[in-house]
Amino acid sequence: MPIIYLDNNATTRLSPTAYAAMQPYLDGLVANPSSLHKAGQAARRAVEHARAQVASLFDSKPAQIIFTSGGTESIHLAVLGTLRRLASAGTLITSAVEHVAGMAVAERAVAEGATFHRLPVDKAGRLIVDDLDEHLKSPPGIVSLIWVNNETGAIHDLEPIATAARAAGFVVHVDAVQAAGKLPLQPVTQWADLISISAHKLHGPQGVGALWMRAGVTIDALQQGGHQERDLRAGTENVPGIVGFGAAADDARTRVKKATSNLKSLRDRLEYAICQACPNAVVVAHDSPRVDNTTTICFEGVPAESLLIGLSERGVFASSGSACSSGSVEPSHVLVAMGLPAGQIEGAIRFSLSRDTTEQEVDMAVVAVTQVVDQLRALMS
Amino acid sequence: MPIIYLDNNATTRLSPTAYAAMQPYLDGLVANPSSLHKAGQAARRAVEHARAQVASLFDSKPAQIIFTSGGTESIHLAVLGTLRRLASAGTLITSAVEHVAGMAVAERAVAEGATFHRLPVDKAGRLIVDDLDEHLKSPPGIVSLIWVNNETGAIHDLEPIATAARAAGFVVHVDAVQAAGKLPLQPVTQWADLISISAHKLHGPQGVGALWMRAGVTIDALQQGGHQERDLRAGTENVPGIVGFGAAADDARTRVKKATSNLKSLRDRLEYAICQACPNAVVVAHDSPRVDNTTTICFEGVPAESLLIGLSERGVFASSGSACSSGSVEPSHVLVAMGLPAGQIEGAIRFSLSRDTTEQEVDMAVVAVTQVVDQLRALMS
Repeated sequence: MPIIYLDNNATTRLSPTAYAAMQPYLDGLVANPSSLHKAGQAARRAVEHARAQVASLFDSKPAQIIFTSGGTESIHLAVLGTLRRLASAGTLITSAVEHVAGMAVAERAVAEGATFHRLPVDKAGRLIVDDLDEHLKSPPGIVSLIWVNNETGAIHDLEPIATAARAAGFVVHVDAVQAAGKLPLQPVTQWADLISISAHKLHGPQGVGALWMRAGVTIDALQQGGHQERDLRAGTENVPGIVGFGAAADDARTRVKKATSNLKSLRDRLEYAICQACPNAVVVAHDSPRVDNTTTICFEGVPAESLLIGLSERGVFASSGSACSSGSVEPSHVLVAMGLPAGQIEGAIRFSLSRDTTEQEVDMAVVAVTQVVDQLRALMS
Repeated sequence: MPIIYLDNNATTRLSPTAYAAMQPYLDGLVANPSSLHKAGQAARRAVEHARAQVASLFDSKPAQIIFTSGGTESIHLAVLGTLRRLASAGTLITSAVEHVAGMAVAERAVAEGATFHRLPVDKAGRLIVDDLDEHLKSPPGIVSLIWVNNETGAIHDLEPIATAARAAGFVVHVDAVQAAGKLPLQPVTQWADLISISAHKLHGPQGVGALWMRAGVTIDALQQGGHQERDLRAGTENVPGIVGFGAAADDARTRVKKATSNLKSLRDRLEYAICQACPNAVVVAHDSPRVDNTTTICFEGVPAESLLIGLSERGVFASSGSACSSGSVEPSHVLVAMGLPAGQIEGAIRFSLSRDTTEQEVDMAVVAVTQVVDQLRALMS
């Protein structure tokens, strides 16, 4: 049975290019980059080469990249590292539709004394900024917002928020984990101070991420010890992982510049065919700008878990909400924040395509979705 | 020129067995283990299989293993995670010879309100516990001690300290990063609550570590978001890294049970020959129990950095102090704490062997060391 992988927002396939770059660092001696000897220096050069490659995704300097163990760590480093740097307790402003890591880090920030505000969203998933000016009167701290929502693919219009926040003395962090590899990141560097990305969302390896830092921005380290990453992230570098990240970033930089119209047309084809075939299917955040690869579709009255398992049996792999919380039974906080009816939320499925997705796969997925939805609706009626 | 790698305490070579185990998880689709579909479940099974393998290093249950990004993170999770769990500010007791991660985490603990005590050491590197009972009268918190010192290889007699600490209501964390793969860990589980280890110190991949937890011990997560690792460490799992760790741990478990007399005899051969050939060479912590693979030798009056570079030119790779701080010019805090004269500390070189080290390599290393020491002494006299 062919496998149709439509869960690329959860994780992407490691690209052959990235794996090929990693192989010499997995097969044979790879020293600790902090060691003075030649083997250590070779490992150091590999890390610095990868740093330049990841920096090129941002059109920025290598020194602006801090390697971490992934997106969740980058988000924590940005938010807590900024707040701890302040002389007195500051303010954290996020939104109701952050990734679970961005939601959860607020708990810790509050425990450490931060004032906390959360921007709501409308039915299309757009941030509501009516109270922003009021929030920005709190003692400055950090505004931390997701750029591309991992569940809906909605692209938030962050620039005006960032401009107001920075004018009010706030640091601006952008969670670009789902944007990297899909949208050019250079424009964001014009108005953000910190940007989080993750390798495994752009066909790099799992277990490695980065934090881009505007020159001059200072944060506290969360992990201390060795002097790695300019004293901002202690611990022996994951050399093969970092090398793979570099290669994947290099690849992504080239591809992002090309038109992604093919991906969008595949996604639209999927949405259109499913909505034609399945009565009451609703595309979430349809009225918001979205990245080309993502669609979340609600099948009201069909339990998402049963639908996902039925699809999996047919070789079609999708998700409900974010993978990080799909082990739990809580409804998606993103869809709840958007005010979707409970019946729609319970039947919400995310399909996330990649550059590897084909038209044939989309068509086969539509057939499988239609069959499983029909079966489940028949069972439940 | 043959390469003689004697820097295994900095990082070990990834074993072919571990790499072979990782390959299927690097070459092809590896889903997010949190995804419900079959590919996600396959990734989940791979992680859980590796968890059982790592648990077997401790002769314990898989549920007692929390995967992290490495030793530094494990140490932070143990210390800060325990202290944050307390209803009111607690006490942290460490020693003057912790790894730099164990030294630095104390800064953060103090910033979060902890009372802090540090046990000194004697000239042989043994912990001085004269004040321990007094320190244990502070509000309970955590005693966090390194078992095998990364610079000297000294094995600390932690059991009596742990027993007293636990009787006083303290949690006991053991930094076993340099012990894992060299000493059996099961005995430590009898008197420790938390144990940190790292994959890349036992021929596993860089970028992955673990925290062993006694059943019933509770800590706070440092990284929050997804429900990974029983809510104790959010973030998409590094599936290939974890799989490689599992294979390396399985291998280490088997090897640790065999006699390591060959490694010890190679290390002793190296020490003896160097001390015969180099006047004034002094073996550090010679009077302490030590692991078989490590020796730090002081060449008084010879700058360690010049010696390391000279050795590197001859293909012999060693370290001064720990790799994590070798980029810095500060003298080793471990050797300072042991009260070694400054002249000896400046000329201290660590040779750390592995199961791959051969007698021929040791003999070639001795020749290189003798030549470089003689040259440098001639230059400086």
